Amino acid sequence: MAEKPKKPQKLRARLPRGLADLRPAEIAATRAMVGKIREVYERYGFEPVETPAMEYTDALGKFLPDQDRPNEGVFSFQDDDEQWISLRYDLTAPLARYVAENFDTLPKPYRSYREGYVYRNEKPGPGRFRQFMQFDADTVGSASPAADAEMCMMAADTMEALGIERGQYVVKVNNRKVLDGVMESIGLGGEENAGRRLTVLRAIDKLDRLGVDGVKQLLGEGRKDESGDYTKGAGLSSEKIGYVVKQFDGGVEIHPPTIQVNVATNAPEINPTILEQGYSELKEIERLVATAGYGADRIKIDRSVVRGLEYYTGPVFEVELLLDTKDEKGRPVRFGSVGGGGRYDGLVSRFRGEPVPATGFSIGVSRLQAALTMLGKLDITPESGPVVVTVFDRDRIADYQKMVAALRNANIRAELYLGNPRNMGNQLKYADRRNSPCVIIQGSDEKANGRIQIKDLILGAGLSEIRDREEYLKKQTAAQYEVDEGRLVEAVREVLARHEVKWG
Amino acid sequence: MAEKPKKPQKLRARLPRGLADLRPAEIAATRAMVGKIREVYERYGFEPVETPAMEYTDALGKFLPDQDRPNEGVFSFQDDDEQWISLRYDLTAPLARYVAENFDTLPKPYRSYREGYVYRNEKPGPGRFRQFMQFDADTVGSASPAADAEMCMMAADTMEALGIERGQYVVKVNNRKVLDGVMESIGLGGEENAGRRLTVLRAIDKLDRLGVDGVKQLLGEGRKDESGDYTKGAGLSSEKIGYVVKQFDGGVEIHPPTIQVNVATNAPEINPTILEQGYSELKEIERLVATAGYGADRIKIDRSVVRGLEYYTGPVFEVELLLDTKDEKGRPVRFGSVGGGGRYDGLVSRFRGEPVPATGFSIGVSRLQAALTMLGKLDITPESGPVVVTVFDRDRIADYQKMVAALRNANIRAELYLGNPRNMGNQLKYADRRNSPCVIIQGSDEKANGRIQIKDLILGAGLSEIRDREEYLKKQTAAQYEVDEGRLVEAVREVLARHEVKWG
Repeated sequence: MAEKPKKPQKLRARLPRGLADLRPAEIAATRAMVGKIREVYERYGFEPVETPAMEYTDALGKFLPDQDRPNEGVFSFQDDDEQWISLRYDLTAPLARYVAENFDTLPKPYRSYREGYVYRNEKPGPGRFRQFMQFDADTVGSASPAADAEMCMMAADTMEALGIERGQYVVKVNNRKVLDGVMESIGLGGEENAGRRLTVLRAIDKLDRLGVDGVKQLLGEGRKDESGDYTKGAGLSSEKIGYVVKQFDGGVEIHPPTIQVNVATNAPEINPTILEQGYSELKEIERLVATAGYGADRIKIDRSVVRGLEYYTGPVFEVELLLDTKDEKGRPVRFGSVGGGGRYDGLVSRFRGEPVPATGFSIGVSRLQAALTMLGKLDITPESGPVVVTVFDRDRIADYQKMVAALRNANIRAELYLGNPRNMGNQLKYADRRNSPCVIIQGSDEKANGRIQIKDLILGAGLSEIRDREEYLKKQTAAQYEVDEGRLVEAVREVLARHEVKWG
Repeated sequence: MAEKPKKPQKLRARLPRGLADLRPAEIAATRAMVGKIREVYERYGFEPVETPAMEYTDALGKFLPDQDRPNEGVFSFQDDDEQWISLRYDLTAPLARYVAENFDTLPKPYRSYREGYVYRNEKPGPGRFRQFMQFDADTVGSASPAADAEMCMMAADTMEALGIERGQYVVKVNNRKVLDGVMESIGLGGEENAGRRLTVLRAIDKLDRLGVDGVKQLLGEGRKDESGDYTKGAGLSSEKIGYVVKQFDGGVEIHPPTIQVNVATNAPEINPTILEQGYSELKEIERLVATAGYGADRIKIDRSVVRGLEYYTGPVFEVELLLDTKDEKGRPVRFGSVGGGGRYDGLVSRFRGEPVPATGFSIGVSRLQAALTMLGKLDITPESGPVVVTVFDRDRIADYQKMVAALRNANIRAELYLGNPRNMGNQLKYADRRNSPCVIIQGSDEKANGRIQIKDLILGAGLSEIRDREEYLKKQTAAQYEVDEGRLVEAVREVLARHEVKWG
């Protein structure tokens, strides 16, 4: 038997995992959110600055939480001159490069903000994307806890500007210095333990998500997740694991400070200086926000906050949504962290060779948007579509096009039906799908008399529900009628006014 | 002699070539431009859709004009599963993928728009960046020249919406089918000559930039540019080069069509079908736009338009600025093309295995913005900075912070001075740099009396020019004065009203 001739291979239209397209409703929601965030940040005196999506890899540094993938969490490629370039994985590292490069010409302290996409070469999962939007604010050149306090207040104000009511969110504050004190007490102080210390901190950071048992595995030998992927653990002894978990489980407030040195862990003495410094900064932040009217219902000290990024050196903040909802299968969904930040005194210094204190805050726009959408707080009413001028007689396209131009010149959203005009039914169906308020029809009879037909699709949609014949005929007349072609713009404006259609 | 101890190596803060940071004025200009373009596109009935910055490399296809670099013009990397991913080099190829993937659920014809950054791994140069912004509109599912005509009209309307007056721009239209006719006449017809044909077309496309001699080199052996880079030529005989250049030099209108077969080139007969089809489409576009009121001062047929991208199959358009200016050295600067597009009937079909006609138009936002800035058409008045609350007594930061919070709650842009508050001079200098309308000062004397000082920096700036002593004292009193601390918000509002400061 002869082989069937092979069909030419068709390319499959698909996106790589962890990437997504955005449709009109999502774009409208993002625009609205970004506008509101921007308003708050500007009210706080921050000014915009934007950096490109790529940077030299060495300028970004390696500060990502998940480095267990070959590309180490970032997308990278080599330039012509062999230098490595990476896509930014956050907006902080590029800002540090920008400030260092333009240090002498910037006002100091330098408050700036920016929104933009960031890229993570990580394993995608539900709600975990490889491209997502962040909206950051940073203050460079101030070592004052007042700068950190300002970040927390701004975070709280932003949540409320986005329609999240007081009590539905909380800004939690901790201090890496306090965490470092605990690390010292289990013998993980010093530069030589930086790597292991970070592994422990990141394990603690996952308490919310993995629970005590998951964190214990990460502190010990390691943990295999549902997909079978294995994460190596910190290798702590079971005594130390018990001690560490006790310090952080339950989210007990550390204010006033009460961390005890547990002799059972054989831990060295905690360095009192760094602990005290950490506590005093936290106290100062708490005092500043309280004086400004931000109580613990909005901003509170919470010892369980870690933030996964390596570059934090002092206060760290996290914004958590306290709302929950159910997914389509009825399972409870907790949203958790939708933003955070902290002090990163070393990031600009890497370029400058002198201390440059800095603190910043980042909102996960994509993540927050997903949460607000699930919570029904981002219901964007779909806008009315354009007026559609139909094609009755295909030889007269230029005439129809002219009508469209007249409508557009009058600032009315309008379009010509550009598909195959084989019948009016198709064109009306198209107009329906486009959510058009009305269509314009001009057949040869109307043309001869200098008339056009206006079909009001919003009135027309109600017709099928009318049972009374007389009323039906009356409404039908109201929904489709003729006017002089010279009255096109005026007549369409009447339809738009009738249904209060406004665009933009 | 002992060696000097090495300083720890400092990282250099710099961007890879061809990338740029955006400062507040540029960001404001982009926002304004994007808003105006969006308004026009929506008036034309287009709806937004956005795709991510990366796609599978095979989905993007290889349609770039400059493929003479190792990475072939695009930034690419391999994913975990060995598949190649690339950053998008335009917004058309990803849109084709999106439409193909969602074909059944989209209204057809499908009109959509999107703005976004695109990435070209090309040799950067003056005005040539490796990341830049485009704003595209596409109509998929219409083979009608009316769809192409609409693109041209929309391009013209967009230019005028951006403040470019009639006569300062022109939308030029040509047709690849006509160009292909000429290619056939020099023996470059057929699938087997696709590569060489494109080389010739791209050479013609550079007529504006390189002049006749440069193009002749590209049509022949090749050309070395000022930087020494060599581009291989099309290898045409000198007779054919002469013939081709004659067809395109001078920008002679081809309407009515008059391309002659030159027997001296030994060219085969031109395929009359494709030529006629090309001309009839051009005529139809011209008729449609003319009927809609767009004369040749706005949209005109021009045989020299090629557009470098390989995927065009029919009408091609180009928007050219007719304005010129001088650069800082007094040399004339021509802006040339700031946008363009055309029909790409094959791009969606690659995924669908059935014909899907499509046409689109793209504005080079970054390029147009650079041009408008040089022409002084984008003068964005710098906004007033925030009100600065100064720190007189560093133990009372919480009090000052509270004032700032009160101002912000009243929707007034305000900030606390976060630098080292060693003296008032520094703080006032900072407020000046931030373009603040006024500063708030509260020393211990004022505090004791429940008063604050308001220093109006705009009035204060005029003081130095006053020669008359009495007037000086009067104005000085007006520029700095005390009020009750309870009147903070009210008093600041008076300053803002005095100078008509409005934000946002």
